[in-house]
Amino acid sequence: MQTTLPAVPTPDDAALWHGGRLYLADQRLLPDRAEFLALDDAPGVAEAIRAMVVRGAPAIGVAAAYGVVLAARTAYRAAGPAWHDAITPDLDLLAQARPTAVNLAWAVRRMAGLIARLDAADPEPALLAEALSIHAEDRAANRRMGDLGAGLITGPTDVITHCNAGAIATGGYGTALGVIRSAYAVGKVRRVYADETRPWMQGARLTAWELMDSGIPVTLQADGAAASLMAGGGVGWVIVGSDRIAANGDVANKIGTYGLAILARYHGVKVMVAAPTSTVDMDLSCGGDIPIEERDPEELLSCGGRRLAPAGCAARNPVFDVTPAALVDAIVTERGVVLAPTLEKMRALMG
Amino acid sequence: MQTTLPAVPTPDDAALWHGGRLYLADQRLLPDRAEFLALDDAPGVAEAIRAMVVRGAPAIGVAAAYGVVLAARTAYRAAGPAWHDAITPDLDLLAQARPTAVNLAWAVRRMAGLIARLDAADPEPALLAEALSIHAEDRAANRRMGDLGAGLITGPTDVITHCNAGAIATGGYGTALGVIRSAYAVGKVRRVYADETRPWMQGARLTAWELMDSGIPVTLQADGAAASLMAGGGVGWVIVGSDRIAANGDVANKIGTYGLAILARYHGVKVMVAAPTSTVDMDLSCGGDIPIEERDPEELLSCGGRRLAPAGCAARNPVFDVTPAALVDAIVTERGVVLAPTLEKMRALMG
Repeated sequence: MQTTLPAVPTPDDAALWHGGRLYLADQRLLPDRAEFLALDDAPGVAEAIRAMVVRGAPAIGVAAAYGVVLAARTAYRAAGPAWHDAITPDLDLLAQARPTAVNLAWAVRRMAGLIARLDAADPEPALLAEALSIHAEDRAANRRMGDLGAGLITGPTDVITHCNAGAIATGGYGTALGVIRSAYAVGKVRRVYADETRPWMQGARLTAWELMDSGIPVTLQADGAAASLMAGGGVGWVIVGSDRIAANGDVANKIGTYGLAILARYHGVKVMVAAPTSTVDMDLSCGGDIPIEERDPEELLSCGGRRLAPAGCAARNPVFDVTPAALVDAIVTERGVVLAPTLEKMRALMG
Repeated sequence: MQTTLPAVPTPDDAALWHGGRLYLADQRLLPDRAEFLALDDAPGVAEAIRAMVVRGAPAIGVAAAYGVVLAARTAYRAAGPAWHDAITPDLDLLAQARPTAVNLAWAVRRMAGLIARLDAADPEPALLAEALSIHAEDRAANRRMGDLGAGLITGPTDVITHCNAGAIATGGYGTALGVIRSAYAVGKVRRVYADETRPWMQGARLTAWELMDSGIPVTLQADGAAASLMAGGGVGWVIVGSDRIAANGDVANKIGTYGLAILARYHGVKVMVAAPTSTVDMDLSCGGDIPIEERDPEELLSCGGRRLAPAGCAARNPVFDVTPAALVDAIVTERGVVLAPTLEKMRALMG
């Protein structure tokens, strides 16, 4: 949204276009420090995505779209009417900043589609309009998903969410947290249990912050505590976002989601995945084809600046996993709900 | 063991009786700093147990036994021949330091049994001999469990362990890590995946340290990463310790164990619980009767000294959960192995 810049980022204003620059709330510091990072070129945006200044599949799509606007400015300044050629390296840089969330490639591809239709004149105004549309459409999609997802929840219930699929992970309002917001507003959600979500602690840092900011009751728990919570009863749904959904309905999301879905099935708890259709990748037949990002083992070897494991300790740090469609009760998109997803149903949704 | 004091604690020498004092490796600082805490009264030992200077069910039993020796010294100095009455408050203090691990009450009860048989003379020598026996018996039990547990593993396989049930959590050698040591020695374990085990990070800090110290290949992972590891194949067993086993074979252990057992069953991975019979509580019919310690929510709200969640955030912090016997393939004790535990089989084991 082109807007005035608040003094500090809020969950719903974590990515803003202002005065010809992209402002991103630095999500690595939240909620301890709420600070914007101002970006004015595409390499800076790509690095911000890579370093997780901005994270969350739809949010990195939105950020990349604005990154393309900045890339166009750079290219037009450098090459004038020949900007079409000059912009390509920046588009690649943006699209490849992180591998798992397909919204990133989707947003760059959509911007590239417009680029192909533009003439030699300054492309910035048209591309900015498109980026603002992507951003606004994502917000609107989340509102729609909120309503659709809330419609699936029958009664007042506790829910578990994993990682952060909130306003700050999207263009605003949130996917999973959007559903939770809408359901809470109509009395269908009593309390949200937020898995803290190691190693980046998005649950502790971002989801708890967002929900407290919205006045929605939230209780933080260790990732390992979800099973005993489910065994105690009272939890009706696990509600999560996604970074990529394959054509058959297999869902890539934050590491731990797959295990949570198994625990949910074991305890008769339902699993809802809320994600815009920009997260659906019909080119991949199943979840096994989704590239899973493996990040620096160092993220596991220390926490909060304190060294935990002995120096030289080996660690595996896949930051996503794949939940098979068979463990998913509902995929909620802005185009509609898919219950018990299959290839056929996903094809019908995506048209 | 009454012994010379090494310069720094090692995994196998983390609790030592030396020069009339109890030396405990401060497990809150490991492996960053390896330091002994010297204790010379029972309240100090009780506080060290409560504050997790020493943790691990068998280790706190051993520490409490030495604590009774210190309590007897205090009582005899204060009351002389009337020491039997003077010692009672310290025994209660020790027995109640933490609620879940039954080894604590078991060790204090065993020491109290000897106390009841002693006359008015200085009790310290007899009680020290008993505490040293408890310590030595625990080490020997772990060696025996190591052999028995290794015998259940058929081939070279990867294993997952959760929390730390190693030398440092016991009188020495370890329960779960004892089985892993024995199995590794005969080529049946290829690699150990250690769950980091939030919130105290015993996996990252203690299990990784112990296994690296022993030259056993170890890879650390986030607790939420166990499911995707199992899905990838290669993991034959989950091997854990226990804090209390009910008469029907239900197992209390570190929070996350129950979920791990469900994931194991889902993936066809077997679950082994290694624990001495001092961990078995035949007075409790099932796991639902085991008191589950809930610790300070603050343990979840920050990590490594850095604040994570917003101030005032609610958190649930149960530090144990209960795995029903139906999810346990084998309980390994020093008296023998119970496959697919039931009340009848547990009764037969315990005699």
